[in-house]
Amino acid sequence: MFQIIFNQLSAAEMSALPKTLQLDLLAEFQILPEDLENLDSSRFGLLERDRKKLYRYRAKDYRIYFEKTPEGITVHRVLHKNTNVDFLSAGAQKWMLGPSGAGILFIKKSRHELLRPMMVGGWNVESPNFVAQREIRYENGGRKFEPGGYNNIPIAGMQGAIALLKDVGLSKISDRILSLIATLKSELDPADFEFLSPDGSSDHASFLTFRPRRVASEKLVDALAKNDVVVSLRIDRANHGWIRVSPHFYNTFAEMERIAEVLNQS
Amino acid sequence: MFQIIFNQLSAAEMSALPKTLQLDLLAEFQILPEDLENLDSSRFGLLERDRKKLYRYRAKDYRIYFEKTPEGITVHRVLHKNTNVDFLSAGAQKWMLGPSGAGILFIKKSRHELLRPMMVGGWNVESPNFVAQREIRYENGGRKFEPGGYNNIPIAGMQGAIALLKDVGLSKISDRILSLIATLKSELDPADFEFLSPDGSSDHASFLTFRPRRVASEKLVDALAKNDVVVSLRIDRANHGWIRVSPHFYNTFAEMERIAEVLNQS
Repeated sequence: MFQIIFNQLSAAEMSALPKTLQLDLLAEFQILPEDLENLDSSRFGLLERDRKKLYRYRAKDYRIYFEKTPEGITVHRVLHKNTNVDFLSAGAQKWMLGPSGAGILFIKKSRHELLRPMMVGGWNVESPNFVAQREIRYENGGRKFEPGGYNNIPIAGMQGAIALLKDVGLSKISDRILSLIATLKSELDPADFEFLSPDGSSDHASFLTFRPRRVASEKLVDALAKNDVVVSLRIDRANHGWIRVSPHFYNTFAEMERIAEVLNQS
Repeated sequence: MFQIIFNQLSAAEMSALPKTLQLDLLAEFQILPEDLENLDSSRFGLLERDRKKLYRYRAKDYRIYFEKTPEGITVHRVLHKNTNVDFLSAGAQKWMLGPSGAGILFIKKSRHELLRPMMVGGWNVESPNFVAQREIRYENGGRKFEPGGYNNIPIAGMQGAIALLKDVGLSKISDRILSLIATLKSELDPADFEFLSPDGSSDHASFLTFRPRRVASEKLVDALAKNDVVVSLRIDRANHGWIRVSPHFYNTFAEMERIAEVLNQS
């Protein structure tokens, strides 16, 4: 008997992914007992952490980290290849549906030294009893990047927005947006439109950017506006206008069809 | 007949000052017709702007700018000696009663070049169609210091707070706070308390900072807290604790007396 066990963390990571992606990953992650005797470095990576040997399997854009056990393997993590980031920032506005003025900054612990805070305040430098010191010595941890004077109201708004997104469910939102995008794209004839957004299954974007081959993008953006559809007109370095449609989970398939209808008729 | 006329601007500036200060300034600003023939530079400054000769008279911490007219003089400006600032910043929180995260930054036009913005964004550097440029060229005017991504909600809160303060009236608020401070101070025996706040009429502070001569400041702050009075304990570089009472216009004289009562009895 050969067992593949997902621990609590990897099971949660797996279930946070879109359903179709989960199935794809499981289909690809086919490890046979004999593979374990012969974990060659071309298919498997090896990491040693805390005296534990962890193997890494590449499945699409994901990395499955697992450990050998007497019964088979235990999967510890299922992480996107870009998970192991040094710096990550995200504004609360736009996709996150929160207010302008708040956001999230993540800095890997080992990179804290590397980044100098933009602002110095009473909270992120050592200032006992709010008495300014001769030398600037930053506080440790995330506090190094929080000068003080919290932007409380937008932060509370972001918290509310994150709660809403969690309530709906990230994988559900992701599935929904990709379906909306796919619907819109399927209604647009490639003979009439050039697409900028990636096509492959691995790099799906949450919006669709394209331009008409025969008329100016501006004309179609105007036509959409007249039909109460708000999209973004973006200009690239070659001065080409592109139409960017950015649906969110609350948008409907009927709306995507309506957009396509206006675009095809203009 | 010798006329002293305040134009609209100087009249407004005058009436924005506390009543007692207005009277003091008018009492000091005694110009006789013969003075105009003999505007010596020790008592009067001379500025030439737009081919106009403006005289400056020093009265306490104010500067009265006036012009000679056939009938006497016309007062153009009544400005505090510190009015002519290069840089001024004020947070919306604390005295302004607004939210944390918003504030006002004033930079004299001739100093715009001198100050480099802390942040670079899509709004404060030239970026036609949001396309980043090879060189950073700042926008002109106040926009140089507004990187974009407005912190709308706290700014709206600050606007509300400013409207509230204007509604009550700045000179009324100023008079009220100074009276509250004076009341509190008059109830505290200088034999028992040392005062840090300035004493003179010209540099009144909007809060009173002091410490007891016979007990620790911490003890009195605790006693106040037990009586539902929130004050700030501030520590100086010599490690002395000071009690800071910061009343605003909505505080009452009864509250000041209550504070003094607790302090005198503890």
